[in-house]
Amino acid sequence: MSTSTRLLVIGGVAAGASCAARARRLDEHAEIIMIERGPDVSFANCGLPYYVGGEIGDRAALAVQTPASLKGLLNLDVRTGCEAVKIDRAGKRVEVKYLADGRSEWISYDKLMLSPGASPLRPPLPGIDDPRVLTLRNLHDMDRIVAATEEGMRAVVIGAGFIGVEMAEQLRHKGLSVQLVELQTQIFPQLDAPMTALLESELRRHDVGIVLGDGVARFEPQESHLRCHLTSGKVLEADLVILSIGVKPDTELARDAGLALGPRGHIVVNDFMQTSDADIYAAGDAVQTQDRVIDSPINIPMGGPANRQGRVAADHIFLADKARPYPGSLGTAIVRGFDVAAGITGWSEKRLIAAGKAYQTVTVNDHQHATYYPGAKPLSLKIIWEPESGRLLGAQATGCEGVDKRLDVMATAILAKMGIDDLCHLELAYAPPFGAAKDAINLAGFAACNRRDGLVRHTSTLPTDLQVQIVDVRPKPLADAFPAPGSVINIPFPTLRANLDKLDRARPVVTLCAFGKMSYFAARILAQEGFDVASFSGGLKANVDPRSPAKLPTA
Amino acid sequence: MSTSTRLLVIGGVAAGASCAARARRLDEHAEIIMIERGPDVSFANCGLPYYVGGEIGDRAALAVQTPASLKGLLNLDVRTGCEAVKIDRAGKRVEVKYLADGRSEWISYDKLMLSPGASPLRPPLPGIDDPRVLTLRNLHDMDRIVAATEEGMRAVVIGAGFIGVEMAEQLRHKGLSVQLVELQTQIFPQLDAPMTALLESELRRHDVGIVLGDGVARFEPQESHLRCHLTSGKVLEADLVILSIGVKPDTELARDAGLALGPRGHIVVNDFMQTSDADIYAAGDAVQTQDRVIDSPINIPMGGPANRQGRVAADHIFLADKARPYPGSLGTAIVRGFDVAAGITGWSEKRLIAAGKAYQTVTVNDHQHATYYPGAKPLSLKIIWEPESGRLLGAQATGCEGVDKRLDVMATAILAKMGIDDLCHLELAYAPPFGAAKDAINLAGFAACNRRDGLVRHTSTLPTDLQVQIVDVRPKPLADAFPAPGSVINIPFPTLRANLDKLDRARPVVTLCAFGKMSYFAARILAQEGFDVASFSGGLKANVDPRSPAKLPTA
Repeated sequence: MSTSTRLLVIGGVAAGASCAARARRLDEHAEIIMIERGPDVSFANCGLPYYVGGEIGDRAALAVQTPASLKGLLNLDVRTGCEAVKIDRAGKRVEVKYLADGRSEWISYDKLMLSPGASPLRPPLPGIDDPRVLTLRNLHDMDRIVAATEEGMRAVVIGAGFIGVEMAEQLRHKGLSVQLVELQTQIFPQLDAPMTALLESELRRHDVGIVLGDGVARFEPQESHLRCHLTSGKVLEADLVILSIGVKPDTELARDAGLALGPRGHIVVNDFMQTSDADIYAAGDAVQTQDRVIDSPINIPMGGPANRQGRVAADHIFLADKARPYPGSLGTAIVRGFDVAAGITGWSEKRLIAAGKAYQTVTVNDHQHATYYPGAKPLSLKIIWEPESGRLLGAQATGCEGVDKRLDVMATAILAKMGIDDLCHLELAYAPPFGAAKDAINLAGFAACNRRDGLVRHTSTLPTDLQVQIVDVRPKPLADAFPAPGSVINIPFPTLRANLDKLDRARPVVTLCAFGKMSYFAARILAQEGFDVASFSGGLKANVDPRSPAKLPTA
Repeated sequence: MSTSTRLLVIGGVAAGASCAARARRLDEHAEIIMIERGPDVSFANCGLPYYVGGEIGDRAALAVQTPASLKGLLNLDVRTGCEAVKIDRAGKRVEVKYLADGRSEWISYDKLMLSPGASPLRPPLPGIDDPRVLTLRNLHDMDRIVAATEEGMRAVVIGAGFIGVEMAEQLRHKGLSVQLVELQTQIFPQLDAPMTALLESELRRHDVGIVLGDGVARFEPQESHLRCHLTSGKVLEADLVILSIGVKPDTELARDAGLALGPRGHIVVNDFMQTSDADIYAAGDAVQTQDRVIDSPINIPMGGPANRQGRVAADHIFLADKARPYPGSLGTAIVRGFDVAAGITGWSEKRLIAAGKAYQTVTVNDHQHATYYPGAKPLSLKIIWEPESGRLLGAQATGCEGVDKRLDVMATAILAKMGIDDLCHLELAYAPPFGAAKDAINLAGFAACNRRDGLVRHTSTLPTDLQVQIVDVRPKPLADAFPAPGSVINIPFPTLRANLDKLDRARPVVTLCAFGKMSYFAARILAQEGFDVASFSGGLKANVDPRSPAKLPTA
């Protein structure tokens, strides 16, 4: 490129700021103008909830950069309060409007980057324009929520995705009472329902009220507060409402310019983040890219992909053939609610079902490190793979510690197109405070291969058919204290070989235990003794009560 | 296999116990005999140091299984205090001796598993047989150390590998004074020296005395204590000595039986853990397997590989063609010293140098999660790759939190034969408590690709040549408070563009900062302005003082 390249960046948060920063490093002499409608650039949007709850005490820590700091660091021309209103593609210029004084001007460009982001959804419900119905996108929204909240107030959070769960947690931290309402029948709907059970119980344990399978129909303003009428007829009284039901891409400008958009309004880009106009790039929450697991379009409105997409665009503009393509998105995500984390990478079981794809899955329950070392806490890991090839399609994890680590390893394994056999022999870091000689990920590989090799059949639901004999192989005191639902025969594992005659060989058997490990051992014995047997995958912890102990405390 | 297969397992800890357990799951009717010379089977050997220091309070937690529990769980015939003295390969039988009564017998086998483990090295130094010179291999050794130690005593730990570092930490926990002596000029010699700086400073901060580049020459018993004479002439006074200078494989039995051994006495096995006798398998600390990064023999005396090797052998015996090979070992390892962890996966730089292999490396300094979220702590990550292909060869990490996570991701990436480009686009789990939009691993990928693409040259040492202009781009107060060594010009980064005339264009420049990020930015500016410039890789933190802050605290 000539040294006089002018790059105009519309939108100065994750994708736009990353693009501008990388561009400057690649070309000291380019002219780089970054405009942003809001008052702030390059702020830490993922940190906003934590300032509301006071966990982040320093607001300045969230304002990662300012126009002045970006001038000093990157010699950028940053204009905040500046809105792009029109793209003249033929003339390669953008009309902008300065919100402070209403003045307009045209800014020409050699290359244009669109990183407009996405706005919180605000469906046209009666009463939604009440000022007590708040959303959270930027520092300004955050400040409004901080100003509107105080200890003892009643908050209703609509939508239990990331922001909903994080806001519910943080508003409880601040001493508000919180009701969390979710249209689906589970919280954190990206995950399969059983993998959200621990997080849900943790929120309830901290007195977050949870209303599932219900949505808001209308808001009825009262003098002192707001009445939220749910579609079920239920009414929640609120001093404020946080609306966190999802986002829509801010792509009117791109649409008006005639750029190709996807079915849900996202900007279509190629592997180098070029739109249908080769001089216009787009990145971040507003674009659709390719899914890295199953070839299909995907939109991941999150910071990691946005940052890396912005960088790829800058590389393509300034590095020529040394630029490497954006390989697509995976959808790795994690949320924390109090002491519990839950997350996903790749495809969920329900998404595969909806897409009509074949898959297999197992869930293992283990701990984040060796159980003989103090502080071991339960961890559940679910893996999903393609039956024919064994290739990994997705993973989910939940627990108190080490959830992020397993997700990151699984994300790496999925991106590497590893299969279930590869998981068996991942050589992960082991010292007692950090792991186990056989990590949960190795165990998941073992369980998956056992299934593939026909050593065990798994069931993920307990049968209700009374013909089936459900054998609980946990120690009797544990089985008595935390009984499995339904009609169950308790035969503690060490006594199983001596008690085969208690079972009817003509009827099928399902074995169960706390973690899914002893039930597998039992199923192996019974299968070799000629029984028709399946093991209850993941044990009671994954499916019934995630806090039921695996062992009774010894006196 | 017929249901009457008799599997004889010699050695009942990690590899042997895993083999026997897997064998039982695969064949309910096999006869499985496990003999063990010591009094305990299947104990948690990696946990032993933590019981010495009291972190693990329950000794029973370390004795994972007993002969009785293994009978109940797995229907194993376990014989402790039983030593194998001879293998009759032609007769397919092993002569064993019961230590309790001296009785001998021959036990025949269809398949034999050798999992004898490795013994702590005890070189023939004068005085080494003094009862106060202790080693740590099993519960019995642990009990001896516990009985021999009390608060206020003086301990000398010889050898600063895993066990040495863990024992130094735990003996400090117990209130002993500790000197840690290492023959090499760094602690934890598996790592490259700079990656051990933080761990070393952490040990010193907890008053562990560290003597490097020195070894023990002889022990001189005194009436009340032991005098340790080092080869340097230095003398350390000790109430007890822990000898942790490495292990040697217990392979006399295999050698006497004529099985093929490697150059360092390890049992040679094929991909299914078969020795040179197809009916005899071997696994664990005593075997040599293939290195998974660079094809060469390797011995990894650690729990993870041992467990998985034992399982592979059982699969090969009982699963026939469904058995999958052991893919080799990587050498992933981690150690904790107080609040600091350090670890490695794959090859180190010094091992590559010794093997004459070409490589490139970068070190990035970052934090375990977003810095705007409270609790961010420094993390250093070093990656090493093959110059031609970009394929990853190794990684090392150190820091207070998240070290194990980065090692596990890097281990997975190395096993997947990923390259530096792949690291850029790993989509890792990000929410403020868990990570960052661009994780340290992504940053390492960026830095490596920048180097590959010729955007930056790195130097890992500060030049002493006075011709070279060293430019410190940190803020002046920080540069003043934590000065870089040598003759350095401070030009704070935001003022660099305006101060290019302070530098002599005819002389080379090295840029430096705290983390290696701003120095890279500065190098980009200077390179584009025509300077001959290199960036000091990893910044001052990685190379000089790991505890020097990146920012001065604001008032």
